[in-house]
Amino acid sequence: MNSEKKLKELIILGIDPGLADTGYGVIKKDGQKLEAVAYGSIKTKRGLPLAERLLQIEDNVSKLIKKYKPNRVVIEELFFCKNARTALVVGQARGVVILSAAKNGIPILEFTPLQVKQAATGYGQADKRQVQEMVKVILNLKNIPQPDDAADALAIAICGSNNYYHDNLL
Amino acid sequence: MNSEKKLKELIILGIDPGLADTGYGVIKKDGQKLEAVAYGSIKTKRGLPLAERLLQIEDNVSKLIKKYKPNRVVIEELFFCKNARTALVVGQARGVVILSAAKNGIPILEFTPLQVKQAATGYGQADKRQVQEMVKVILNLKNIPQPDDAADALAIAICGSNNYYHDNLL
Repeated sequence: MNSEKKLKELIILGIDPGLADTGYGVIKKDGQKLEAVAYGSIKTKRGLPLAERLLQIEDNVSKLIKKYKPNRVVIEELFFCKNARTALVVGQARGVVILSAAKNGIPILEFTPLQVKQAATGYGQADKRQVQEMVKVILNLKNIPQPDDAADALAIAICGSNNYYHDNLL
Repeated sequence: MNSEKKLKELIILGIDPGLADTGYGVIKKDGQKLEAVAYGSIKTKRGLPLAERLLQIEDNVSKLIKKYKPNRVVIEELFFCKNARTALVVGQARGVVILSAAKNGIPILEFTPLQVKQAATGYGQADKRQVQEMVKVILNLKNIPQPDDAADALAIAICGSNNYYHDNLL
């Protein structure tokens, strides 16, 4: 991990886990410059068995890690969900994402939603649309990245590109 | 899965997932006879990073599957937790357990707590101690299996040894 300090370039993979949609965003940090490398969403179909859906998430996250070789994987600390059932479902997807990163030996950082908003906008009370707008600006994109969970994942990656490191290690 | 019907013997692995303690119970069904093969608990230390704890759970579940070669893995449908945070933590462990089974190509069955109680005691309102007592009787054990989550996992395996199969496939 200390070896990271000597790297000129950092690749950061942000992930916003969910059973149906897992957003991902890969960014490159070169000096102070941030650049979007890839983003999108891993989608699993509602009709499939849970086991198959979790396998697909794990397989796709592993492929992203092998393809982009991130120095860090970054996820958001989960908001308190409205109900325990939702938390259980998201938790299952989140566990699989964390496991994929760990199996590939990549350090995983976790940030609160407040930290993610502050990193993107300098303002903890920003709404979802404002965060997405700033992601577009920070990464020099022509449009707000789609789908929404990909934009969220890029915001998470931007937050993880900063240097508050050991405190956030999961 | 249909090939299961031709098997004289069935090996069933019941799992009660948790981040700190994941109970497991392996039973063998030979005709109508049930026998305990192995049981215990996978424990992970509170101080360790979450990623490391999930890796340990996955690694140990995989080892159980490779050692005992179960025909089915059985888990309990999660009780509604008291709060969303508990559900998230258990969900992460549960996702990893389901993934381990799926990666090894083993079908996973899920039963409600009511079904598990009924399978062990014939009585859905039985308390935890009554269920454990019946696990001891059904499996011809000298004592109630310890720790508690191992006894729970054996009860889950007993429930999964019955033949209501496709309805419960996860």
